[in-house]
Amino acid sequence: MGIANLRTHICRAAWIALAGLLVISLRAQTPASPPPAPAAAQLPATPSFTPNLLRGFTPQSSTVEAAWEERFLALPQPASLRQSLQVLTAQPHMAGTPADRANAEYVAGVFRASGWSTRIVRYLAWLPYPHLVRVTAISNHRQLLPNYEAPITGDRFSAMSSAVIGFNAYSPSGDVTAPVVYVNYGLPEDYAVLKQDGISVRGDIVLARYGKSYRGIKAQLAAVHGAVGCLLYSDPNDDGFHAGLAYPQGAWRPASGIQRGSILNNNYPGAPLKPGQAPPAWEAAAWKAALPTIPTAPLSWQAAAPILEALAGRPAPQAWQGGLPVTYHFGGTLQVQAHIHLVMSYKYRTIWDVIGTMRGRHAGEVLIGNHRDAWTFGAVDPNSGTMVLLALARGLGHLYAQGWRPRRTIKLCSWDAEEFALIGSTDYAERHTPGLRRNAVAYFNLDEGDYGPNFTPGAVPSLRRLIYSVARTVPAPPVTTTGSVFPLSGCAAQTVFQAWSCASAAQPAAAPSMTAPAAAPAASTLPRINVIGGGSDFEPFLDHVGIATADLSFSGPYGVYHSLYDDFHYFQTEADPHFDYGVACTRVLGLLTLRMADARLLPLDLPDYAQAIMNYLQAEQTRAANTPAASLNWARVTAAAEGLERAAVNFTTRAEAALNASAAHPHANAANLARFNQTLAGFEQTLLHHRGLPGRPFYKNLIFAPNITNGYSTARLPGLAQRLREKNWAGVSVQLRYLYQALENATTRLKITR
Amino acid sequence: MGIANLRTHICRAAWIALAGLLVISLRAQTPASPPPAPAAAQLPATPSFTPNLLRGFTPQSSTVEAAWEERFLALPQPASLRQSLQVLTAQPHMAGTPADRANAEYVAGVFRASGWSTRIVRYLAWLPYPHLVRVTAISNHRQLLPNYEAPITGDRFSAMSSAVIGFNAYSPSGDVTAPVVYVNYGLPEDYAVLKQDGISVRGDIVLARYGKSYRGIKAQLAAVHGAVGCLLYSDPNDDGFHAGLAYPQGAWRPASGIQRGSILNNNYPGAPLKPGQAPPAWEAAAWKAALPTIPTAPLSWQAAAPILEALAGRPAPQAWQGGLPVTYHFGGTLQVQAHIHLVMSYKYRTIWDVIGTMRGRHAGEVLIGNHRDAWTFGAVDPNSGTMVLLALARGLGHLYAQGWRPRRTIKLCSWDAEEFALIGSTDYAERHTPGLRRNAVAYFNLDEGDYGPNFTPGAVPSLRRLIYSVARTVPAPPVTTTGSVFPLSGCAAQTVFQAWSCASAAQPAAAPSMTAPAAAPAASTLPRINVIGGGSDFEPFLDHVGIATADLSFSGPYGVYHSLYDDFHYFQTEADPHFDYGVACTRVLGLLTLRMADARLLPLDLPDYAQAIMNYLQAEQTRAANTPAASLNWARVTAAAEGLERAAVNFTTRAEAALNASAAHPHANAANLARFNQTLAGFEQTLLHHRGLPGRPFYKNLIFAPNITNGYSTARLPGLAQRLREKNWAGVSVQLRYLYQALENATTRLKITR
Repeated sequence: MGIANLRTHICRAAWIALAGLLVISLRAQTPASPPPAPAAAQLPATPSFTPNLLRGFTPQSSTVEAAWEERFLALPQPASLRQSLQVLTAQPHMAGTPADRANAEYVAGVFRASGWSTRIVRYLAWLPYPHLVRVTAISNHRQLLPNYEAPITGDRFSAMSSAVIGFNAYSPSGDVTAPVVYVNYGLPEDYAVLKQDGISVRGDIVLARYGKSYRGIKAQLAAVHGAVGCLLYSDPNDDGFHAGLAYPQGAWRPASGIQRGSILNNNYPGAPLKPGQAPPAWEAAAWKAALPTIPTAPLSWQAAAPILEALAGRPAPQAWQGGLPVTYHFGGTLQVQAHIHLVMSYKYRTIWDVIGTMRGRHAGEVLIGNHRDAWTFGAVDPNSGTMVLLALARGLGHLYAQGWRPRRTIKLCSWDAEEFALIGSTDYAERHTPGLRRNAVAYFNLDEGDYGPNFTPGAVPSLRRLIYSVARTVPAPPVTTTGSVFPLSGCAAQTVFQAWSCASAAQPAAAPSMTAPAAAPAASTLPRINVIGGGSDFEPFLDHVGIATADLSFSGPYGVYHSLYDDFHYFQTEADPHFDYGVACTRVLGLLTLRMADARLLPLDLPDYAQAIMNYLQAEQTRAANTPAASLNWARVTAAAEGLERAAVNFTTRAEAALNASAAHPHANAANLARFNQTLAGFEQTLLHHRGLPGRPFYKNLIFAPNITNGYSTARLPGLAQRLREKNWAGVSVQLRYLYQALENATTRLKITR
Repeated sequence: MGIANLRTHICRAAWIALAGLLVISLRAQTPASPPPAPAAAQLPATPSFTPNLLRGFTPQSSTVEAAWEERFLALPQPASLRQSLQVLTAQPHMAGTPADRANAEYVAGVFRASGWSTRIVRYLAWLPYPHLVRVTAISNHRQLLPNYEAPITGDRFSAMSSAVIGFNAYSPSGDVTAPVVYVNYGLPEDYAVLKQDGISVRGDIVLARYGKSYRGIKAQLAAVHGAVGCLLYSDPNDDGFHAGLAYPQGAWRPASGIQRGSILNNNYPGAPLKPGQAPPAWEAAAWKAALPTIPTAPLSWQAAAPILEALAGRPAPQAWQGGLPVTYHFGGTLQVQAHIHLVMSYKYRTIWDVIGTMRGRHAGEVLIGNHRDAWTFGAVDPNSGTMVLLALARGLGHLYAQGWRPRRTIKLCSWDAEEFALIGSTDYAERHTPGLRRNAVAYFNLDEGDYGPNFTPGAVPSLRRLIYSVARTVPAPPVTTTGSVFPLSGCAAQTVFQAWSCASAAQPAAAPSMTAPAAAPAASTLPRINVIGGGSDFEPFLDHVGIATADLSFSGPYGVYHSLYDDFHYFQTEADPHFDYGVACTRVLGLLTLRMADARLLPLDLPDYAQAIMNYLQAEQTRAANTPAASLNWARVTAAAEGLERAAVNFTTRAEAALNASAAHPHANAANLARFNQTLAGFEQTLLHHRGLPGRPFYKNLIFAPNITNGYSTARLPGLAQRLREKNWAGVSVQLRYLYQALENATTRLKITR
């Protein structure tokens, strides 16, 4: 793919060397200013609509805002979402491919047509494509194991051969033959079991099933234990016929479905090498640790079966048994070997971020991001998010055309190369760190935005109330019956909040007794908002820059993840046949964006955040009980957290007074309110430490980070928790000091804001 | 089988109507007095043997005892155990069959030959045998499902056709055809999941997998939910190729292995109807509840597969998926039905307990019991116990012949019809309750006594120290490698205690972190002794009569439970190929018996018991937190438990002083010591309440009982726990009062003993 492919309307291209990045900024021909407002920008006002006072708004602005919100709610159309998804998933579009580029153009086109000032930003990223992936099982005969999915009748996409074969990005090339040892999920405790049974994987190839940890950690641990190769497969117990009906009957992984994916160890997101950049020593060392050292490849369960069936040695424990109808053995004997032959093509390849901007007249910037690149068709991951992003672009553009003007700037970001290493988002965040720290008020992320009826948001504690508030406003989507998803009985919900609460409460209670009925779920409990810290493009924004972040998703069963079958046909039959959840997702995201962009006083709840920190601290202190760390100065940091909560409550009272004052005298109090907003927007940054977390300086947020023992999930107080786990008591002390300093700084910042 | 079958040497038969039971007491020709002692009863004394002072013994008697114990340890011979087992398992011997009778004669013969005064006691028990068990799967075709195991090459026993077909004892006869609903394990929470999904089993046949609860409770719950029939099968995930290698490669259940078993609900052990007895109303009502109401039959997984494969309706949740390579569905549609046709032959049948007695010169009686009847060959269940019982009979007989005399009487009991309803043991205990309450000092039980290397005792708290002490004396058996059991590396144990500790510590640690090494097991922790209360012949002795009880077992994987394959070939290849664990079990049991029979002061630890009660109380009080029961008078009962502990400590000090005094002046202090022993022996009885537990008056022990929600496991403070679970706060108050009264009575009893 070369420059010749670029569309002709690109008017200028400039090489900007910033932080050593080669960037091509593609500015489009659309006007930089918002589209002209209709001559008479009439405020919509429906007499029957009597909104409550919206948090962060004056009574008057609240009424105006509610009216715009009501108008927005009516905009998303299933047909439009459907059409976007159809275009985006017409062909496989891995990062750096022409199809990826075409999708960038399509996204940019929709942004522009909706009135957004739009740029396509080009980066060079060091991406591996697989040239050869050849895995052979050698027992009493040789059997080449398939590295591609079988076509499925009725799914015309699955018959297209243009998708990349099954591979693990950032695996080295290599050619190894060795006995196979089955290592269960390849977790540290699995290796402990092997060790206890006297089995070493040194010189062997490990076969690990996907699940319970990030695949990059599986490959890394295999290498740490001396393995010379690593095979990762999807077991039917975890993701296949024992998880639910397999596609096309249901949503779960069929026999030949392969989970592709990166195995880079994400202690530092972004591409491992940057063109023209000589990284500082620590970064080079970090990359050395991050890059896998042994050839690694993924398998479907059908491909792994000949190995699993033939493995000898001792039978593995019951907890290690998977869904194939054989006794799983440890292996490690010469009876079954594997031959892994990988040739990877590493190159600097061009990737494309698309950034659409709608300028506000006040300080502050709301970012909404979603990656666009996919391993194959990416119907769910990530383009169910992209279709929502496009619906948001259209919806806000429509409001703009009707006269609405955002108070703050809104940026829509279509990231590239997330699948490889969150590259597009990280590069953007790194380039714009100072500006983001000055301006950003929130970052809303989408990834697998829509694949079922269950609203499953994640957010920092300061955004939780806003999410509850918005979910109470958005109508509940009708629930569709598919092969996998059945409507929950007794959940006649009017709003997303009610459906979400009902679904949360409907989780089967754990082992009730025979004689007593299962305890009725407490109706008063708020539905769950996940903690957030790792796993998608929000990482650089939350963990590095320090921006209040939420991640939105309507979820369900999803067994075609990273396989060929994550396509439009799957989406229409299993994920969201009528695009109802996509509409709901757009509405939630739209209201979050409107609220955050328009509020006089930013709807970020700092007392909630302080309270959460206290809870996290208490949990760590409990874990530290009966260790030398118990004697450290926990009281000081706990007192600091309590002090922060008091300061936050006091700050909120003063901020709301300022808001009320501004209702009477908007101009007189504008500067006052701006100071409160600046403190609110900067709050997340006060929780960063410039040194970062132990061993991963990129991650500077002391409260949330990816869980390093797992890679996907989120660690709370990650530095402290890590040092405790390592029994590094001096390190625990350091982390307590960092936390104390951050909490004290945050408190001071709140106190001095007037 | 009639009277004509009785062996001719039976010299008298008397009908004794005692408590309405029809009993035939068969007294043997052996002399009632112990066999004559050798002319010069020399005390064995090895100069190199310097024992510590044994608890409950004076220095002199301790030395003598240790010498006898050392001699006993040398007696059990693998060849002898092997020969016993071979005889006992030559053919299937279900309770009431001629083969069962022949085994009773064999056991009695061994007892007699070893010098025990032996009776065969005949009872009539209401036992169902299966006349017809016919289960047919009806989908697009009809398929008769096998009710018998397939022969296995190399296992000549498995080709014998004289074993009973697969059936569930106490199922009613019946002939039903209905759609099948898969209900997972058939637990209350499983029905909650079905209800949540809008699925009723009313009018259907449920298919439940074995595991997690007693099969009788599965059948009962199915009926409670309106099912018209119940099929129980063994899933390969729980007991088959995913638990480990299947027999004959390993110890787990092969494709056609059927788990037979009773489905009577054991709220009242013993036979459901007793000849000539008009039961009191409450008992009749209890039996009505206990007797299953819907036809129920067991299946192998191979037999259940055609149903599971064809089930339609919704796919079941992931936790419900088993080991067959299909998606398990809820079913409940007309696409798959089952036809269950059962004809059961209910009759009063004769069963035979064998009781061997060796009289001691002092008050007190140690009982050792083990059932003898088996569903098929019963190599493990129960005859691995019986071979140990016979080795004990021989060993103690040998010591007797060498001059040893037990201080207290020892009774060896070979129970019959345990498999149906603990009938032989319960009938014995009910007939002898007053005598047992007067004389018994301990009851030691065997059931599946030997099927692997892991010592897994259960005991009341007062017997724990004695078990630890004995386990420290008995040499560790060599560990044998079989298809299923591998030696644990790093467990070079000298004693059973060390091997037991090592195996306990070697349990894989739960989810250690990636960075920190798994915590080393605390070396100081004592290995686990299970609580005891339900599941074998000890129930009437511990829970009804009130005798300090232990249950002994050397355990391992065991997937042929209640199937045709529980035979001598299995035992020799999988359970204990060299009879080493059987030898160890005999040694442990022998030393427990010797110690308990000979101790001057009974080695029962009452402070330990009081401490355990305090812990159990605390656990229940924690569970009661935030309920109306929290406001009840827990302080009073806790104070009573603390008072009991103080009294027990004080009692122990005084009792040991009395023991020391008796060392100097044995005769002067004999009466004194006897009072202490009487209080020790009666301690368990002070924990009974005459009304029994809620809804099951037979179970009178307030501290331990079978877990009614599970049927196998043990409930602690069962009445209190039950009332809490039922949220019956008035009942909780009553149970607290009962406990208070029992603890106060026990305390008083200890205080007044001088």
